Amino acid sequence: MTPTHSFDMALRLTAADRPDTWLGHSSPDYWNMVGPFGGTTAATALRAILLHPALLGEPVALTVNYAAAMAEGPFSVTAKPVRTNRSTQHWTVELAQDGDAAGAVMTATAVTAVRRETWSLNDTPMPAVTLADATGRLRFSTSAWTNRYDMRPVRGVIPKVWDGSGVDSLTQLWVRDDPPRPLDFPALAAMSDVFYPRVWLRRATRVPAGTVSITTYFHADSRQLAECGDGFLLGQAKAQAFRNGFFDQTAQLWSEAGVLLATSTQVVYYKE
Amino acid sequence: MTPTHSFDMALRLTAADRPDTWLGHSSPDYWNMVGPFGGTTAATALRAILLHPALLGEPVALTVNYAAAMAEGPFSVTAKPVRTNRSTQHWTVELAQDGDAAGAVMTATAVTAVRRETWSLNDTPMPAVTLADATGRLRFSTSAWTNRYDMRPVRGVIPKVWDGSGVDSLTQLWVRDDPPRPLDFPALAAMSDVFYPRVWLRRATRVPAGTVSITTYFHADSRQLAECGDGFLLGQAKAQAFRNGFFDQTAQLWSEAGVLLATSTQVVYYKE
Repeated sequence: MTPTHSFDMALRLTAADRPDTWLGHSSPDYWNMVGPFGGTTAATALRAILLHPALLGEPVALTVNYAAAMAEGPFSVTAKPVRTNRSTQHWTVELAQDGDAAGAVMTATAVTAVRRETWSLNDTPMPAVTLADATGRLRFSTSAWTNRYDMRPVRGVIPKVWDGSGVDSLTQLWVRDDPPRPLDFPALAAMSDVFYPRVWLRRATRVPAGTVSITTYFHADSRQLAECGDGFLLGQAKAQAFRNGFFDQTAQLWSEAGVLLATSTQVVYYKE
Repeated sequence: MTPTHSFDMALRLTAADRPDTWLGHSSPDYWNMVGPFGGTTAATALRAILLHPALLGEPVALTVNYAAAMAEGPFSVTAKPVRTNRSTQHWTVELAQDGDAAGAVMTATAVTAVRRETWSLNDTPMPAVTLADATGRLRFSTSAWTNRYDMRPVRGVIPKVWDGSGVDSLTQLWVRDDPPRPLDFPALAAMSDVFYPRVWLRRATRVPAGTVSITTYFHADSRQLAECGDGFLLGQAKAQAFRNGFFDQTAQLWSEAGVLLATSTQVVYYKE
């Protein structure tokens, strides 16, 4: 079946004639300033794993390192199961581009697992905000990818004036694909990266910034994701420290029903 | 110079006759229940990078995946600089043991960078607790490694009674090496993993648990670490979600002077 949603088209991979390897192409729909939106790159790493015939279980952890800006054009992505245990499996992933001889464009590691029902607990309740509390759609860039998400901030809207007046780094926003699309693991991986750089909010100053590495933990299984349908998720992001060119930002994503679906953290380069 | 501190002895690596590769040996001083303390394994991955002649800059991010329990005995660790940019460098690391043909025992990725002075901000102030607020030394296991850290909890002591009465998952504790040792990046990587499994605290129930993957971001440079000397750090850890066999725990480590040195997150397997 030919995918019709722009996210599925961006993640289209075809088997290469080398083991563990797939071929893809950057998507203009998710273009960012100097490369694709990092969320789609993370989702591509995960999709390569999900396509692998040796896959065991479902995603638990994914770390993606952005080694270089991906150029517009084709790429190859190699996902290797480096260790398969009884109920967990460890993966390494690498993305390369023919025109780029300097090395990997992206590296990743992941853990997949067969999950069993156990005692469970949401230890971080969803903030008590509803979609009705949102202040309208967030638009913060001319980059194509930002139009592929319907983001509705409740708190921590991008500053309107860049006057250094920021007081905190917390954003809460409702988010879903535009057009809406049923939630799955690649979509959740991508949505972990939709939050604009915390340094912009905290300083009310716009400086160049780009994610260097992102880690996402998946707390839901595919059944729980399916229950979310194409509804909005509540996302929250906050920085912990800004220091000499790098800051971190943590994120949480809850279903509208209040289930914590994923938690994430990333380290971001910034200038000045 | 022959190292005399048990941490330095645990991290002793000698160059192998293969490129990018070093040889080491598990340490009885840091033994855990079925393998070495994960903190020393993470520190070993980082130390291999720090020993590499092509190293650029200092550690910014480290993700370590525990693919299998490391056996008592020798191991090899391979650290490859897969991409070197102007001011950042991306690494992949793999640890293997001869007797283990099933694949890697540990995989890791890391980012190192040359940091420049920029606008900086501690966005997560240290909790207002002092060493004098601590309730005595934490002892929670017969495992050797727990004796290598002087841990003094202020809040979230390990439950005395396993009766299911837990109410939250937050621990704050002062920690340093025992015997004291000047802080460096490998020590900070290891200390990110000293917090006992949050599931024990939240449930007041002791179930089998083990870290699957840990990510640590370093917010300090070596000069700032040197300023800490061999003093105590304040560590804080908290879970976000427990779900069907896996939970996450976030952690922060501040210097006694209140500088946020590192932030960390890990995903942990648990049973029942």
